[in-house]
Amino acid sequence: MGDVNRFAMNQITAGPTWGFAESLTRYHALGIRGVGVARERLLEYGLEAGARLLRDQGMSVASYCFGGLFADATGLRLNERVDDFRRMLDEGAAIGAASVVFLAGGLPDGSVDLAGAQERALEGLSRVIPHARDTGMTIGLEPLHPSTCAFRSVLVTTGQAMDWIEQLDNAPELSIVFDVYATWWDPNLEASLARANGRLSAYHLSDWLRDTQDPRLDRGMLGDGCIDVRSITRWVEATGFSGFHELEILSERNWWRRDPSEAAATGLERYEALV
Amino acid sequence: MGDVNRFAMNQITAGPTWGFAESLTRYHALGIRGVGVARERLLEYGLEAGARLLRDQGMSVASYCFGGLFADATGLRLNERVDDFRRMLDEGAAIGAASVVFLAGGLPDGSVDLAGAQERALEGLSRVIPHARDTGMTIGLEPLHPSTCAFRSVLVTTGQAMDWIEQLDNAPELSIVFDVYATWWDPNLEASLARANGRLSAYHLSDWLRDTQDPRLDRGMLGDGCIDVRSITRWVEATGFSGFHELEILSERNWWRRDPSEAAATGLERYEALV
Repeated sequence: MGDVNRFAMNQITAGPTWGFAESLTRYHALGIRGVGVARERLLEYGLEAGARLLRDQGMSVASYCFGGLFADATGLRLNERVDDFRRMLDEGAAIGAASVVFLAGGLPDGSVDLAGAQERALEGLSRVIPHARDTGMTIGLEPLHPSTCAFRSVLVTTGQAMDWIEQLDNAPELSIVFDVYATWWDPNLEASLARANGRLSAYHLSDWLRDTQDPRLDRGMLGDGCIDVRSITRWVEATGFSGFHELEILSERNWWRRDPSEAAATGLERYEALV
Repeated sequence: MGDVNRFAMNQITAGPTWGFAESLTRYHALGIRGVGVARERLLEYGLEAGARLLRDQGMSVASYCFGGLFADATGLRLNERVDDFRRMLDEGAAIGAASVVFLAGGLPDGSVDLAGAQERALEGLSRVIPHARDTGMTIGLEPLHPSTCAFRSVLVTTGQAMDWIEQLDNAPELSIVFDVYATWWDPNLEASLARANGRLSAYHLSDWLRDTQDPRLDRGMLGDGCIDVRSITRWVEATGFSGFHELEILSERNWWRRDPSEAAATGLERYEALV
């Protein structure tokens, strides 16, 4: 059964209601000791003040979300995003994040060149790895659901993430952020997770609603959808992962419209029962 | 460049406007000689009359859509769907279809047992293979996009379709209906198509819109999205496929609201330019 000491809340689950400090206080009051930090909330509050607040409350940073989007950036734009991701690695180090979450990006507008987009993502990654080494941070490659391939992530499976890591010489600075919502449908899932042994740096939980209205912003609460979270968690733990089980629900039509305390309390309750 | 003699229109592209006979007449007038037949339209018109009309107009049946949905059928329901698919094989034989399209089905309501759903699909397939042999028909396994996994198809990649065919002893009655919309994002696509050498029985074309509103009913016109149809068609042809290139656009918010002649004329024009 899920153990609250392994449970984390991603700040994005609170929707727009809570800022950085309020979400920490509220989650802490529920006995939660891990948090997925949303970059814009942290920077709005201030990096140093945020790092101090995390320390003072004894909150660990399960993941720092998110940067990258190299695949759809061409020319100077790619340079800017590479620089920005280096800054994120500095920020991640300042808050002691378990990983800095990397999203690949989609296709440039009007393009059909999927292979070219993937190459740009790899090129950008090769340029940020040295800074990850310098800062002692790990870059967490997060495959997203194939329905986001056009506009958000040309990285869509766990096996592909392992292929990319191999193409980048198995750099120890690279890891995988594994999200059940993005990957549950994958017929190679169990085998790909076995292959990712020792490579997971974060684990994101939510559920896939049968009647989902949007591939990105209509995620469901644990237990409300069709993902076998218990089995998948077993495979995740078998990779040697011992970090947080982090609830990350982007939900425009439901949870973001409610008091964010509800998502946290319900999430924790479901986690304890289901995972 | 695309050759009209290889081009087919799937009747569903016409939306609800045209019945079986009208779509044949209209497509024929555009010089099109292949058609993907929608079962409910054929049966409404009458099987024998429909078969005769196809023959009289010299129209070939690129695919016969669709049956199956075994994965989410439990108990007696599965028996009914198996029986129904056997009838579809008879109908497919009567109209000389290149294949009878099989969709796997999703998860039963409330279930999280993806492996169980896949097993039911395989069990049902094993029960219809003998009738495919008797009728001389091929069963075309069509992987659908992973966003349909919950409610429509637990079969989501070309590689997985080949795995299923292997698990069914490489029965010669099994083939793959390959759809670019469902598969374009797959990092293993080229390799999986190479593996599917000689196994393709139909090829469905449409495009993935960057701002797609629905995973199932918001497909785009060739050239309006981000699929590299030309490269994928090359890989398809390299499997030895020599059948029709069939335009199948489910489009609630655009093409289904227009005169269906537009989708056919535009589709043919784009096909000649792009494929």
